[in-house]
Amino acid sequence: MKKTTINTRLVQLLVQPGRPHENCDRMIQYADAARKDGIELLIFPEMAVPGYILGDEWEREAFLRECEECTRELVAASTRLVMVFGNVAVDWYRKNEDGRVRKYNALFLAENGMLRGPNSSPYDFVIKTLMPNYREFDDSRHFFGLRQFAIEENKNVNDLISPTTTNLGRIGCMLCEDAWDNDYAIKPLAILASKNCDLLINASSSPFTVDKNSKRNRVFSTSAAQYKCPILYVNNVGIQNNGKTIYTFDGSSCIYDTTGKYVQLKKRFHEDTLTAEVSLSGKTFREAVEQQPDGIAEVFEAVQYGTGQFMRLCGTEKVAIGVSGGIDSAVVAAIYATLLDPSNLLLVNMPSRFNSRTTKDLAQRLAANLGCRYTVIPIEDGVTVTSQQIHNAKVCNTNGGLELVLSLNNPAQENIQARDRSSRILAAVAAAFGGVFTCNSNKSEVTVGYTTFYGDLAGYLANIADLWKTEVYEMAQYINSSVFDKEIIPQGCFTVTPSAELSNMQNVDEGKGDPLIYPYHDALFRSWVERWNRATPEDNLVAYAEGALEKDLGYNGKIADIFPDHESFIHDLERWWNAYQGIGLAKRIQAPPILAVKRRAFGFDHRESQMGARYTRRYYELKRKLLG
Amino acid sequence: MKKTTINTRLVQLLVQPGRPHENCDRMIQYADAARKDGIELLIFPEMAVPGYILGDEWEREAFLRECEECTRELVAASTRLVMVFGNVAVDWYRKNEDGRVRKYNALFLAENGMLRGPNSSPYDFVIKTLMPNYREFDDSRHFFGLRQFAIEENKNVNDLISPTTTNLGRIGCMLCEDAWDNDYAIKPLAILASKNCDLLINASSSPFTVDKNSKRNRVFSTSAAQYKCPILYVNNVGIQNNGKTIYTFDGSSCIYDTTGKYVQLKKRFHEDTLTAEVSLSGKTFREAVEQQPDGIAEVFEAVQYGTGQFMRLCGTEKVAIGVSGGIDSAVVAAIYATLLDPSNLLLVNMPSRFNSRTTKDLAQRLAANLGCRYTVIPIEDGVTVTSQQIHNAKVCNTNGGLELVLSLNNPAQENIQARDRSSRILAAVAAAFGGVFTCNSNKSEVTVGYTTFYGDLAGYLANIADLWKTEVYEMAQYINSSVFDKEIIPQGCFTVTPSAELSNMQNVDEGKGDPLIYPYHDALFRSWVERWNRATPEDNLVAYAEGALEKDLGYNGKIADIFPDHESFIHDLERWWNAYQGIGLAKRIQAPPILAVKRRAFGFDHRESQMGARYTRRYYELKRKLLG
Repeated sequence: MKKTTINTRLVQLLVQPGRPHENCDRMIQYADAARKDGIELLIFPEMAVPGYILGDEWEREAFLRECEECTRELVAASTRLVMVFGNVAVDWYRKNEDGRVRKYNALFLAENGMLRGPNSSPYDFVIKTLMPNYREFDDSRHFFGLRQFAIEENKNVNDLISPTTTNLGRIGCMLCEDAWDNDYAIKPLAILASKNCDLLINASSSPFTVDKNSKRNRVFSTSAAQYKCPILYVNNVGIQNNGKTIYTFDGSSCIYDTTGKYVQLKKRFHEDTLTAEVSLSGKTFREAVEQQPDGIAEVFEAVQYGTGQFMRLCGTEKVAIGVSGGIDSAVVAAIYATLLDPSNLLLVNMPSRFNSRTTKDLAQRLAANLGCRYTVIPIEDGVTVTSQQIHNAKVCNTNGGLELVLSLNNPAQENIQARDRSSRILAAVAAAFGGVFTCNSNKSEVTVGYTTFYGDLAGYLANIADLWKTEVYEMAQYINSSVFDKEIIPQGCFTVTPSAELSNMQNVDEGKGDPLIYPYHDALFRSWVERWNRATPEDNLVAYAEGALEKDLGYNGKIADIFPDHESFIHDLERWWNAYQGIGLAKRIQAPPILAVKRRAFGFDHRESQMGARYTRRYYELKRKLLG
Repeated sequence: MKKTTINTRLVQLLVQPGRPHENCDRMIQYADAARKDGIELLIFPEMAVPGYILGDEWEREAFLRECEECTRELVAASTRLVMVFGNVAVDWYRKNEDGRVRKYNALFLAENGMLRGPNSSPYDFVIKTLMPNYREFDDSRHFFGLRQFAIEENKNVNDLISPTTTNLGRIGCMLCEDAWDNDYAIKPLAILASKNCDLLINASSSPFTVDKNSKRNRVFSTSAAQYKCPILYVNNVGIQNNGKTIYTFDGSSCIYDTTGKYVQLKKRFHEDTLTAEVSLSGKTFREAVEQQPDGIAEVFEAVQYGTGQFMRLCGTEKVAIGVSGGIDSAVVAAIYATLLDPSNLLLVNMPSRFNSRTTKDLAQRLAANLGCRYTVIPIEDGVTVTSQQIHNAKVCNTNGGLELVLSLNNPAQENIQARDRSSRILAAVAAAFGGVFTCNSNKSEVTVGYTTFYGDLAGYLANIADLWKTEVYEMAQYINSSVFDKEIIPQGCFTVTPSAELSNMQNVDEGKGDPLIYPYHDALFRSWVERWNRATPEDNLVAYAEGALEKDLGYNGKIADIFPDHESFIHDLERWWNAYQGIGLAKRIQAPPILAVKRRAFGFDHRESQMGARYTRRYYELKRKLLG
């Protein structure tokens, strides 16, 4: 008699990238527990054994051999279970197109100690069909896809996509992108559904991005209802990185029943299991349960989780933070305060003669509110030594004759202060404290390089560098109202003029500060950085000329209120575009790892080449027209 | 009557990445000149219009529109010529698999004002068939390949590959990788040759890598002779980068005649043309001319060229270099001396009490030999201020009570000195001098992070960071013997013990210095970093246990002379593997751009994920066995 329900468990595993045996051992424990609990179908995420975003780790054959060992161990551990898990599959007798050994991004299905491949596959595992090669994904760099395999075998790829027959029924197995077929000529989910599946599985390793879950729930629940076939979606938690960019994985594993209703694991960023008696033909749940995608709360959770996991990865438990009294360092400090014992958190205020009483007091109040360690180390002595040494330096020609007097202009003097704080004091304080120090730069600053090399750009991690300044304020509000439920970040941090306080021109008590008008510039920069098809000054200027730039940018104010004439608008546009493409990019190359929470984080998502700022001919024509 | 020769010109263009109109304008000048010179066939490199390694510039539609404009202008400029050029081709009515507009890496052939596509293609341009997705290449990220197109069109890819019929004959057009088909199921060159071509063109944009040219000459001349069909290979010059890694392009454009003989442009890294009456059936040249691939000379040329071009890109003409008296900074200084007026080169010696008279004198002698500017700025004052401030810092709890005294251990004190030099002094000196400062780290140091964050790791460019320490010595010899033809780098730099001189434990006059035994460790590190299938400690230990490690590493000494027992060998192996995978990687993320000269330069060639140092089970087993 055909089964009508399957007792199913999804394991939202905390995958440790690059540590196959550690992951495998824990998967085997889950298998043992599942057997005891009478589970019939146990499912792990894509690449649960090796991890997914590993840089070029795939080029190490010793690593691949370890992954293969794990497959053997997991198959042996599948007694009285159907167990589905992602791992790399290696065919040592074939090659990838780079001449290295053949690797597949594979999904294995083991039933009672035996591997079962899809009905029409020559291999006993599922090969990923659709290979993402955008954002942070480099699938084609490492893995041979099913479409390439079909060409090699002279077969039609549609014929190679088929369900796997098990004692529980016909299971259609997919990997992540296989269900995101919008822009592909091949539609694996539809093909599987057309081949009489009882159940569909989508095993993913899908990094957190704001708003991704609600889109997936829409798409997957529609498909489940359309094909009248339950879909089991399992995703891992943890962090993985490609060096410059750190990705968090939220899990959000979910079961979609044949009516399109779904139940999602409620706690994101948390290793957990989702167990259900899945109906193959009707409702699985009385009541659907969904996470609330909730804007800033979701982002806060991602930043907090990613920061905590990255500290663990670095093996650090002590953190020093330079606090200026401004909003950025306050937010960073508050995040760490939720992760560390107060005795392991050291805030350091490093004033110069340009720092106001206002901000010095705010820094101290912040530390008091957090109840952590605090110290004040002024930079005046260091800056004076440096200035004097530069001014007194005898630059000689080879005869020893004095040739040149070195002098420091204003920007140079400002940068000396910023470097004095981070590279001279903070780095030494962190070492003496036995920990690391943080980079508090936000995305607005990182975009245009409004930050100093080896100064405020330095640190072991830039955990708010994927948040625009306006989002930093929003997060600060959220931290007070919802994380601590009291005023941890002093109100003054919200109201003080944002300023680097590196000269008299940046005196906050006179309302002087940063040259950026954040609500407008954030919207402008977002159009350059975060759109799927990135805007350029040409696009901005066209919209501006049509009076449509506010709408195009999603900016709530009036641009004419900021720029009285075309000239001042264009001057500002070019100033920041030059900075974004010039010095900003140079600084991003040497920036610390950036914690990604959105599409187009800097690093391996938004890949950049130093080419200098460029404008199109059409831009110059329009500019000429506007300026008469 | 069928033509028997074609008057041909290859243009080894200096391509400016991201500046289509600049490139296009110069290509049109070449077309005008060619017409005057009676040239029939004029050939430019792959992606001559947009450049090739551009990061995600392809996501900007304004840029794509500019590239398309250039195609139209070039076609219009092809009067009385057959003109072949690489550019991106956009199909605005189709999509790439990332949902963005369809882009092809294309080769255009224009004849007398008209585009001519391959005989069997629905498009009027050639689509690249083989897409490299290894090393620094991300072709599938940006471009839709001919194999994908064949699937979409439900055609056989072999049928889509065909020559283009022109008045000069049937021309088989390929792009770069299309002729490097070893590991691909499809062989475009063979397919074209089988379709009755009179001439084959390979338009490339192929970054310089040591020894690449001799391999290509072997492969291409064999093919030309085998198919009895001339091959015209044209490659660009210039530099292109993907942020972290700077690639040089050497050109080395070449004509292979039907006997397999070839003539190559003699001057690498130089915009030039190669003109010849190419015979379609026999010898083209009386005498074949080939560049000499000559090891260190070739590498020096690449480093010198890349450095000069990168300075131009950054718009800098003044360079400050910290010189220690050691070999690395001496080599860097000598390279810049070949590129700059002596008055624009400033060497800075920054001694502490740990620096010996020996190295201080060597630094001064180097500057004297180079005839450039020189200054000495000691770090003692800065280091003293820092140490005192840290020791005197009052770290309070929130009640203002004294809680903690900070103290600096030896490594912390060493790092303070290194940061004092770069971030405090050198950065300020460079700003006052009106220029930049350099990073002098070599590949050995960068591999294991034997360098200080914001200290000697800092700088605007790391131009010798793809050279092992042993290769730096080799280049230093070459600089004296062949570049300057006299002792520019003082002999003492070769003989002094390599040392950071940051403590009494690193006293060069007592022969104390770096913990690395460079000839051995360079060979070991090379096995981890530069092999196509990277070695791991497991591979090293297996070879060691078999007594085959010297041979495996290509190390000329005896390992037993360095390590008296298994324990000391294993201790050293793990020490450096931990450093390579741990702190070294963390430092590479924040390192300056690295100039690549070999396979597997750090950055976008050798992509890395921070995962901590890991060892396989097989490694641990073998270790246990060896240690008893």
